[in-house]
Amino acid sequence: MISQKMTELGLKRSVIREIFEYGNKRRAEIGAENVFDFSLGNPSIPAPEAVNNTMKRLIEEKDPIALHGYTSAQGALPVRQAIADDINKRFNAGATPDLLYMTCGAAASLTITLNAIVNEGDEVIVLAPFFPEYRVFAEKAGAKVTVVKCRESDLQIDFCALDKAINARTKAIIVNSPNNPSGVVLSEDTIKELCELLNKKSKEYENDIFIIADEPYRELVYGDVFVPFIPNYYDNTVVCYSFSKSLSLPGERIGYIFVSPKVCDCKNVYAAVCGAGRALGFVCAPSLLQYTVAECLGMTADISVYDKNRNLLYNALTEYGYEAVRPDGAFYLFVKSPEKDAAAFCERAKKYEILIVPSDDFGLEGYVRISYCVSTQMIEKSLSGFEKLIEEYR
Amino acid sequence: MISQKMTELGLKRSVIREIFEYGNKRRAEIGAENVFDFSLGNPSIPAPEAVNNTMKRLIEEKDPIALHGYTSAQGALPVRQAIADDINKRFNAGATPDLLYMTCGAAASLTITLNAIVNEGDEVIVLAPFFPEYRVFAEKAGAKVTVVKCRESDLQIDFCALDKAINARTKAIIVNSPNNPSGVVLSEDTIKELCELLNKKSKEYENDIFIIADEPYRELVYGDVFVPFIPNYYDNTVVCYSFSKSLSLPGERIGYIFVSPKVCDCKNVYAAVCGAGRALGFVCAPSLLQYTVAECLGMTADISVYDKNRNLLYNALTEYGYEAVRPDGAFYLFVKSPEKDAAAFCERAKKYEILIVPSDDFGLEGYVRISYCVSTQMIEKSLSGFEKLIEEYR
Repeated sequence: MISQKMTELGLKRSVIREIFEYGNKRRAEIGAENVFDFSLGNPSIPAPEAVNNTMKRLIEEKDPIALHGYTSAQGALPVRQAIADDINKRFNAGATPDLLYMTCGAAASLTITLNAIVNEGDEVIVLAPFFPEYRVFAEKAGAKVTVVKCRESDLQIDFCALDKAINARTKAIIVNSPNNPSGVVLSEDTIKELCELLNKKSKEYENDIFIIADEPYRELVYGDVFVPFIPNYYDNTVVCYSFSKSLSLPGERIGYIFVSPKVCDCKNVYAAVCGAGRALGFVCAPSLLQYTVAECLGMTADISVYDKNRNLLYNALTEYGYEAVRPDGAFYLFVKSPEKDAAAFCERAKKYEILIVPSDDFGLEGYVRISYCVSTQMIEKSLSGFEKLIEEYR
Repeated sequence: MISQKMTELGLKRSVIREIFEYGNKRRAEIGAENVFDFSLGNPSIPAPEAVNNTMKRLIEEKDPIALHGYTSAQGALPVRQAIADDINKRFNAGATPDLLYMTCGAAASLTITLNAIVNEGDEVIVLAPFFPEYRVFAEKAGAKVTVVKCRESDLQIDFCALDKAINARTKAIIVNSPNNPSGVVLSEDTIKELCELLNKKSKEYENDIFIIADEPYRELVYGDVFVPFIPNYYDNTVVCYSFSKSLSLPGERIGYIFVSPKVCDCKNVYAAVCGAGRALGFVCAPSLLQYTVAECLGMTADISVYDKNRNLLYNALTEYGYEAVRPDGAFYLFVKSPEKDAAAFCERAKKYEILIVPSDDFGLEGYVRISYCVSTQMIEKSLSGFEKLIEEYR
C-alpha cells in the first residue's frame, strides 16, 4: 500500500551501522578504551576554531531576520560569489554565482544532480569500490546503475572494463577521488585517459556523458599528491562538494553543486539543478551555515592527525603482512582480506575487539575498510590485535 | 537529454518571485519606504532571543565533534524525545522518538512523506486555495494531484466536491490549517466531518487514506481560536511540521515528521519515511538546529505584531468595501478581487505601489493573497492606496 521500495530501504540495516551498534554493546560491556572501532567515517578532528567563531559572530552581529531568513533557492548571492572566487583562485575554472547551487551536503548535491540529468532508464556508472548510497540515490532518480570494478593492483580505473560498460543509454559516471572506501586518489594520467574515452564514446553515441565529480574529500590529501580538478580536463562535468569532511561539519549539512561553464548547455543543466532541488524539497541550504562557510573558504580542520594515523596504520599493517594500496587521501585504508570471505574475516577480527567493515557493499568483494578518523592512541592499542589476527592465517 | 521536467521547473519563474523582483526594481527607483510589498511569506519578526542564546551556548559549551557531527538519520535521540514529550504534553498523542523524524523544514517533511507513501499513479488531493509547491512535490513523488476547491463563503471544506473526488486510487489528502494563502483555520466541525468521510471512503475502497497535516503555521493563531490536532481525530495521520514560522527560522531548515501511533502499520510507514529521507539525500537535519529547537519548544517569535497587522488590514480593507474571510492564523489575508481577473487587479494595484499576489497559482481564481508579515508602518502607509484602488471599481 505504501511505497514498498522506501519501506525496504528504511528497514534495511546497513552493515556499517550494525557493526557500530555491536561496538556500542561491547563498549558498555568492556569499556570504550578496549574497543577498536574503525567502522565509521565520522571526522574525529574538531572544526577549525574560526568556524565556531564565525558562527558566534554572525549570531551576535547580523540582523537575525536576514541571518535566519530564506536565502534564494540557489543560495545567498554573496556566498555563491565567494565560492566562485575561491574556485577560480585555485583552479581558474570560470565559476560564476549563477552556476553554483548551495546544498544540504554531499548527499543532496548528488541526488539533486542525478534528478536533474537522469531520465527514466538512463544508466549511471559507478566505479567499485564505491560509496553504497550512490546506488540508492541513482536508482531513486530513475537510473539503472552499472558497476565497473577498478584494477585491483592500484585501484585506478580499469579502462577495458569501462569501455565495455558504456552504451547509448549511459548518462553519467560518478568519480570519487579521493575515494571512499579506499582513500585512493585518481592520478592525472587516469583522469586524462578517462576523459579521452568519454569524449570518444560521447561522439560515438551522439550523447554527452556527464562526469559527476563527488569531491567531499578534495582537501583531505597527504604529502604533495596532486588531485586533478576534473572540470579542467573534461567539459561535461558537474562537481558535487561538501564541507562535511574538510571543515568537520558533517551534521550541519552544507555543500554545493558547481556546473562547469563548459558543460554543454550549462544554463539549462543549472536550471534543471534548481528544478530538482525544488522538487525534492530542499528550498535553500541552511542559512547560518551558508554565511559561515563563505568566511571559512580555504580552511581545513587540522588534518595532520589523519596523516599521522594513516602512516602509523599503513606501515604497521603492511609490516605484519597485510596487503593494501597506500591511500593518498580521505581517511580510509582498504585492506585485502586474508580470506576470501571478507565478512568472515571481520567476524574473526571481533575476537581482538577490532571492528572493521567488509567491502561487499562497496561493490568489490574480498576487502575491508578501516576508517582511521579515530584517535592515534586507539590505533596504537589496536596494533597487537591486528598482528595476532593475521597470524591466524599463517 | 537532461530531465525536461526539472529544467522547466527550474526555468519557470514563480509569480511571487516575479512580483518580488519588480518590487526590488521599484525600491531602487522610488525608495523602499514608498513600495508596499505584500508578496512574500517571510517572517518579519526576529527569532526569540532565546534561540540565538541557545545557539551561542551550544557552540561555546558542547564538544564541537558532537555538536557538528552526524546525528542518526532520524535525528538525535534526545531531540526526538524532547519533541515527543512536548507533543504529548500539548496533545496527549502517544508520540515516541521512534515515530519522529527530524527534517530540513516543511518542504522536506512533505517530500519525504509523499515519497514514503505514494506509489506511481496514486492520487493526492489538495484543497484549494493551496500552497503551489504541493503540486510540484506530489507529482515528483509519482502522484496525480486532484484539486478540490473550498467553499467560497468561509473557505472551509466543500464536502460534496471532496466526496466526488475520492476514488480507489486516493492515497492522501493534504490538510494545511492554518492555511497558506488564506489564513483560515479549519474548524473542529470541519475536521470531524472530514474524518467521517475519509473513514467511510477508506472502508468503501478497502484502502486507508492518509491525512498529511502540513502544520508550519500551527502556533501562528490569534485570539482564542482552536486548532484541532488532527491525529486526535483521524488515525491515519502524518504530521509535517516546521519551526520556520513559529521561531522565525525559515532559512535554517528545521522541522519534523510525526507518524501517529494510530497510523495503520505505523512502524512500516515510519520505515518508509526513513527510506525516503535516505533516497532523497537528506542524511540528517542540521545538527546545531536540532539541538537548538529541542531547547526552545513551546516558544514562538512575538506574534502580537502579526495580530496587530491582521486587525489593522482586515478592518480597513473591509471598511473600504473589499471582501475577505477574516483569517484566524498564519500571516495571510485572502481578498476577493473586485474584478474577475485577479492578475489584472494586481497589475492595477501597482499604480499605488501595492504588490500583491493573484490567487491563480493557489488553485482558486479571483482572489489575491496579501502577506501581512511586514512592518505595521508599511501597512498604515499603504491604506490610502488600497482605498483609492477599490474606488476605481465603483
